[in-house]
Amino acid sequence: MNKRICIVGAGAAGLHLGLYLQQHNVDVTLYSDRRPEDYRTARLLNTVAHHSVTIAREADLNVNKWPVNENGYYGHYYYVGTPTPLRFYGDLATPSRAVDYRLYLPELMTSFAERGGLIVHEQISADDLETLSEQYDLLVVCTGKGGFGSLFEARESATPFKTPQRALCVGLFKGIKEAPIRSVTMSFSPGAGEMIEIPTLSFDGMCTALVLENHFGGDLEILSKTKYDNDPRAFLDLLLEKLYKHHPSVAERIDPEKFDLAHDANDILQGAVPPIFREGSAQLSNGKTVIGLGDVMATVDPLLGQGANMASHAARVLGEEIVATNVFDERFVEHLESRREDRVLCATRWTNYMLKNLKELPPEFQQFIGTLSQSREMADEFTNNFNYPEKQWDYFSSPDRLAEWCKRFAGPQAA
Amino acid sequence: MNKRICIVGAGAAGLHLGLYLQQHNVDVTLYSDRRPEDYRTARLLNTVAHHSVTIAREADLNVNKWPVNENGYYGHYYYVGTPTPLRFYGDLATPSRAVDYRLYLPELMTSFAERGGLIVHEQISADDLETLSEQYDLLVVCTGKGGFGSLFEARESATPFKTPQRALCVGLFKGIKEAPIRSVTMSFSPGAGEMIEIPTLSFDGMCTALVLENHFGGDLEILSKTKYDNDPRAFLDLLLEKLYKHHPSVAERIDPEKFDLAHDANDILQGAVPPIFREGSAQLSNGKTVIGLGDVMATVDPLLGQGANMASHAARVLGEEIVATNVFDERFVEHLESRREDRVLCATRWTNYMLKNLKELPPEFQQFIGTLSQSREMADEFTNNFNYPEKQWDYFSSPDRLAEWCKRFAGPQAA
Repeated sequence: MNKRICIVGAGAAGLHLGLYLQQHNVDVTLYSDRRPEDYRTARLLNTVAHHSVTIAREADLNVNKWPVNENGYYGHYYYVGTPTPLRFYGDLATPSRAVDYRLYLPELMTSFAERGGLIVHEQISADDLETLSEQYDLLVVCTGKGGFGSLFEARESATPFKTPQRALCVGLFKGIKEAPIRSVTMSFSPGAGEMIEIPTLSFDGMCTALVLENHFGGDLEILSKTKYDNDPRAFLDLLLEKLYKHHPSVAERIDPEKFDLAHDANDILQGAVPPIFREGSAQLSNGKTVIGLGDVMATVDPLLGQGANMASHAARVLGEEIVATNVFDERFVEHLESRREDRVLCATRWTNYMLKNLKELPPEFQQFIGTLSQSREMADEFTNNFNYPEKQWDYFSSPDRLAEWCKRFAGPQAA
Repeated sequence: MNKRICIVGAGAAGLHLGLYLQQHNVDVTLYSDRRPEDYRTARLLNTVAHHSVTIAREADLNVNKWPVNENGYYGHYYYVGTPTPLRFYGDLATPSRAVDYRLYLPELMTSFAERGGLIVHEQISADDLETLSEQYDLLVVCTGKGGFGSLFEARESATPFKTPQRALCVGLFKGIKEAPIRSVTMSFSPGAGEMIEIPTLSFDGMCTALVLENHFGGDLEILSKTKYDNDPRAFLDLLLEKLYKHHPSVAERIDPEKFDLAHDANDILQGAVPPIFREGSAQLSNGKTVIGLGDVMATVDPLLGQGANMASHAARVLGEEIVATNVFDERFVEHLESRREDRVLCATRWTNYMLKNLKELPPEFQQFIGTLSQSREMADEFTNNFNYPEKQWDYFSSPDRLAEWCKRFAGPQAA
């Protein structure tokens, strides 16, 4: 049987799946409303770090074009703005790497096309699926655009919030000196918000992504609303003022003379993400199966940088399951979910847990932060587990588990 | 933390779990209303073949006391009583072995006790659990007796039947010559029932289990109601008459002079099993978790001999998960189910599928039987997959899958 697969959406999920299926000689068609040349002038799409598990998949797909020894980073600096600020560091066992998706996606799209892959540049909407499905054995939807969300049922138990939890201000900047070890910095300003600094490769080389996760109603919320375009200098001055106050471990490395968006006004993105987890499959009225992948299955706040890594994981599992069968039925979905769901679900839960607990700071969570700040071994494990959200969830899913984990590291050093 | 585990029920599930935890130095207490010496005079408990996956676990537990080169069997003979009867054979990659549980269970119980294990000989009922749970970190229930079923919610989607599907007559017999290769025989008499013949080790050495799975309303149903005790000769004569008519590939090996129950009137068991699948865990009102294992989770008809093998699989997974954590919460249950549920569920589904389709014989199933009878390679795979019910379900879960599987073997030999 010459199975035919249709992928709607050419983000990380769609491209990783398309490249995998192409590599395994499965007849696959990618639908995208964007062409490679559209990305150079587009607004910043997101700020994404790929962890080493994702980079390994890129290597398998022969698209690891940004070696970590040039563009990667090695760990996380943590700053907690308590009355006596805590500063500590955790290593990644293998480096992560962040590339501006306006570079990354067209590069993978081009590879897919150069290897003979078919990309149809059309905007597909949910209404088109039934017709489209007649030509294919399986449809995979991996775009948040086009109203596809309504196709997949939301899972209440994994969707605790009705509204976005952070007012986001995300941008690529220049004028920030790298930390001693090239690393992400996670900075926590209790009551105001979190900021993730990510060394990122963009059009002109390495620059700095700042992901400001501002609490609604807090001192930093204004950063999600103030427009750079209206008065760039005023915006930068406001941002600098807030960074010095709330995120000093990053601010101390800024050269105010050079501090600005990395290239142009497109380098900033403001808004908010409503987190939602949806069932990963649906059936059309003609009986064909549609699989949801990436954002359409799990939309998470960027706080922990899990979105793209989950999407890539799920794409790989889906690719393997598509290669392994010719019958895309309920049992196929069971196999798929039994292998992809735990990681996707745990990344979602862990992100939602952190959104809540970094704001509410319950006693067991303060205890965790305290222990973490005192144990390099624990900080290494916590940092490296950004690769494995299901392992994080093994620790964070109940206060008992968190306490058990802390106990392992609460030696004399923490006394 | 010195975790304390309570196991209620000392069948295969409870003993395999108890021995595993004992081997890994976990504090475990077994509750059973039976003592080792009670089994010799008990009625036949069941007829159970352990497949090689189960025997491998017994070896790990150091209780593989019945080596397959003495007591094992090597494959399945199949007989299908169509107008032109079909006879074919399939190999097991590694032998299976059946031991009378009246020998098996006390032997394992004794090993557990000799190794220092604590067995409390009390009848525990569902009402006792709350009190019992105060002394333990986790309760495991693995007995169908005592009203524990109501503790665990039935899963409708895996419980298709409201009533038993076969009128059972199960016994241990002497006077049946072994087949050329020591093997199980699966004999199908369309419209009347199925019979599984299993070479079984009992008190006096090897004998023959006959598991008669009679259709309600058919010519064989009477065998589930006629009592041996009332008139042994009349029962045996009736049985012989029915075997010659419906299950000739076994009947032809019977010496009528010697044919009788293997030892005494306890060697026969008649009745019916209502198949049910239940959720594998529950929470007591004090927050403690109770895990269901074996029959209390999945009660299956003995048609395919899956019950004990599923129970042993689930016990091993549970043992590993207990060893791996100290927190027995929702996440613990998730880990457990993600590893045990597919096999248990698929054994249930496949058994229920066979109960239905061996009776209704839809066209795609007849096509499957035809292809199977013509392909030794397919018969080997089908036979060996009695070890792996989830692989069987990959083939039987939809007509499309069954057709795909058959296509692989429908070469010129099947034309």
